Amino acid sequence: MYTITVIPGDGIGPEVMGAAMYVLEALNIEFKFQEARAGNDCYHETGTTIPDETIEMAKNSDATLFGAVTTVPGQKSAIITLRKAMGLYANLRPVKSYPGVNSIYSDLDFLIVRENSEGLYSGVEQETEEGATALRVITRKASERISEIAFKQALKLGKTRVTAVHKANVLKKTDGVFRQAFWEIARKYTEMDEYSHMEVDELYVDAAAMFMVQDPHRFQVLVTTNLFGDILSDEGAGLVGGLGMVPSSNIGDNNGLFEPVHGSAPDIAGSGAANPAAMILSTSLMLQFLEEHQEAFKLEQALLKVLKQRKYLTVDLGGTSTTMEMAHAVREILEEC
Amino acid sequence: MYTITVIPGDGIGPEVMGAAMYVLEALNIEFKFQEARAGNDCYHETGTTIPDETIEMAKNSDATLFGAVTTVPGQKSAIITLRKAMGLYANLRPVKSYPGVNSIYSDLDFLIVRENSEGLYSGVEQETEEGATALRVITRKASERISEIAFKQALKLGKTRVTAVHKANVLKKTDGVFRQAFWEIARKYTEMDEYSHMEVDELYVDAAAMFMVQDPHRFQVLVTTNLFGDILSDEGAGLVGGLGMVPSSNIGDNNGLFEPVHGSAPDIAGSGAANPAAMILSTSLMLQFLEEHQEAFKLEQALLKVLKQRKYLTVDLGGTSTTMEMAHAVREILEEC
Ligand SMILES: CC(C)[C@H](C(=O)O)[C@@H](O)C(=O)O
Ligand SMILES: CC(C)[C@H](C(=O)O)[C@@H](O)C(=O)O
Repeated sequence: MYTITVIPGDGIGPEVMGAAMYVLEALNIEFKFQEARAGNDCYHETGTTIPDETIEMAKNSDATLFGAVTTVPGQKSAIITLRKAMGLYANLRPVKSYPGVNSIYSDLDFLIVRENSEGLYSGVEQETEEGATALRVITRKASERISEIAFKQALKLGKTRVTAVHKANVLKKTDGVFRQAFWEIARKYTEMDEYSHMEVDELYVDAAAMFMVQDPHRFQVLVTTNLFGDILSDEGAGLVGGLGMVPSSNIGDNNGLFEPVHGSAPDIAGSGAANPAAMILSTSLMLQFLEEHQEAFKLEQALLKVLKQRKYLTVDLGGTSTTMEMAHAVREILEEC
Repeated sequence: MYTITVIPGDGIGPEVMGAAMYVLEALNIEFKFQEARAGNDCYHETGTTIPDETIEMAKNSDATLFGAVTTVPGQKSAIITLRKAMGLYANLRPVKSYPGVNSIYSDLDFLIVRENSEGLYSGVEQETEEGATALRVITRKASERISEIAFKQALKLGKTRVTAVHKANVLKKTDGVFRQAFWEIARKYTEMDEYSHMEVDELYVDAAAMFMVQDPHRFQVLVTTNLFGDILSDEGAGLVGGLGMVPSSNIGDNNGLFEPVHGSAPDIAGSGAANPAAMILSTSLMLQFLEEHQEAFKLEQALLKVLKQRKYLTVDLGGTSTTMEMAHAVREILEEC
C-alpha cells in the first residue's frame, strides 16, 4: 500500500486530478490518498499558497500528485517551494507523440532532463536604482547530479545519446561549470560497459531551440539548466500537440512529485473541457517511480487506446467529450483487461 | 554615397558576404565598402577577436555588414563587443516564410524585437566556491527603450498586436521591471491616435515557446529580453526553414549592424554550400535602415523569384547550386529590371 499526497490546486487542477484518481482506482494497487492544499484558493483560506502541513505530508508520503495552481503576482509559488523543500532536483519531461493527437511530428520520443533546484530559480533578486538584478546560480554539485540522472535515464529508456544544452559562449563561467561537470560525468559513465555505446554531444540553447523544430529526431535525452529546461519543454509540448498531453516527474533522492506541465487554465475551469491526459500520464510516471511498471504500462496503453479510437476526446483533441467522459473511457478499458 | 563597414569574419562568413556584396553591386546605389576584421582568424593575426580599429570604423560608417565569426571558448565575443560598443540596443529578427523553402509554416510573418544590451549578456559573472554565478541585469531605461522600438516597428510594418514575453512569475523583480516598463509604454503609445488600434498582451516565455510552435499566427510583434530573444528567434528560424533564411538588424540611435542569424558553420566552410539568403536579406534590412526602401524591396523580390524558380538553390534548400551560383541568379534578376 502506498501513501500518496494529492494536491489538486486551483482551476482545472481539481478536475484533472479527479479524473486521474478515478482512473487509478481501477488498477490492482492499493493506495491511501491524503489530500493537501496549495495555491490561490488555499491562500485565501489560510494566508499562504503552501502551508507547512502540505509540505510535511508530501515529504512523508511515497509520492505526491500535483494538479495545477494559480499563482497571483506577489504570491509565493507553491510548486517552486515544494520542489525546493522536498529536494526534487530533477525534472523529467518526456516529449512523446501520441496517436490520434494532432501534432507537428507523430513519432517523437525523447526526454528533457531539467535541473530543478538552481539557475535563475535561485530566488536571489535585488532591486537597484536603475531596475533590478537576478542571480543565476550554477553549482558543480547540482550540474553533476543532473548529468548523472540524464545518463541513468538514457540507460533505463534504451536511449543512445545524451545532449547537454547550455549557453557557454555567453555565460562563460556559469555554463562553463555546467559544461565541465557534464563532460566529466559523461567520461565517467561512458567508461562503464553498460554506457560505453552512448554518444555524447552538446548544443547551445538557441541552436537546440531551432533543432527541436527542424530536426527533433536528433534528440534522445537532453539535459539542461532550470530555465532553459522550462522553455524547451514547453516548446517540446508544442511539437506533440500541446500542454494537454505532457506529464512530468520531479525527482529527488527520497521523493517524487508528479504533475502535468500545463497550468490551472482558469479560462476553461469548470467547463469540463480540460484534457485529463497529462495528469493521467503523470500518474503513470508515478507508477514507474514506485516500480509498478506493469500497471504503469497498462495505464498508458489504455489511454493510447482511447486516443486511437477518437471517440471520447476532449475539445483540444478535436472531440466533444468532457474531462470525466474521457477518463471514464480510459477506466473502462482498464476494467476490461 | 554610403560608407559601409564590411566585416566578413570566419568560416562561411566571407563566402556569404562575398555573395551579398556581388548582389549589392547590381543596385542603383553607390557604396563605399571598407573591410574590417574580427573573429578567430583575426585573433591569430592580431591577438584580439575585435580590434579597436574595427570598432572605430563601424562606429563612423553609415552602416555595418557582419558575416559570421567563430568564437573559441575563452575568447572575447566580437559580436557582443560590437553591439555594446556601438550602442546597438535593439535586435530585430523577422520570422518570415519564403516560397519554395521547405518549412513547417508557409505563411508566417512576424517580428521578434530582442533587447540587445543587458539581461544575461551583462558580462557580470563570478566564480564561487561551489561553482559560479551570473547577473541578469534589467533596467527600466532599456526596457522602456526596447518597448518603444516594438511599437514603432509594429506601426511601420502594419502590425496590430504587440506581445511582451517574460518570466515574471519566477523572475519577479527583474521581469517585474521589464513588464511594468512595457505596460507603461503600451499605455502611452495606445493613447496616441496612430497606435490606438493596437492590441497589447503578454506571455510567459515558456508559453511563448509553445505557442510559436502550435499557433505562431497569434504573433505579430514580440518584444522580449536579451537571452529569451536569442532562444525564441532561433526557434522562429526553425519554423521558417532554418538559419540559412534569417537575417537580423542590430539598431542603435546612430548606428546599424546587419547580420545573418546563422554562425560561421566551419563544417561547411570552403565547400560552396553556404546559403547566401540570410546575408542577402540582411543587406535588404540595411537598405531599409538607410531609407532606401525601393532598392530594399527590389532586392527582396529578386531573391524571392530565385526561391520560387527552384533552379538555383543551395543544398539546404534542396538544390545543388553553390553560394555564388545562387547569388548570381539573384543578380541576374536585378539586372533585368
Ligand atoms: C509555474 C512555473 C513556476 C513553472 C516553472 O517555471 O517551473 C512552470 O512553468 C513549469 O514549467 O513547471
Ligand atoms: C554568437 C552569440 C554570442 C549570439 C548571441 O547569443 O547573441 C548569437 O547566438 C546570436 O543570436 O546573434
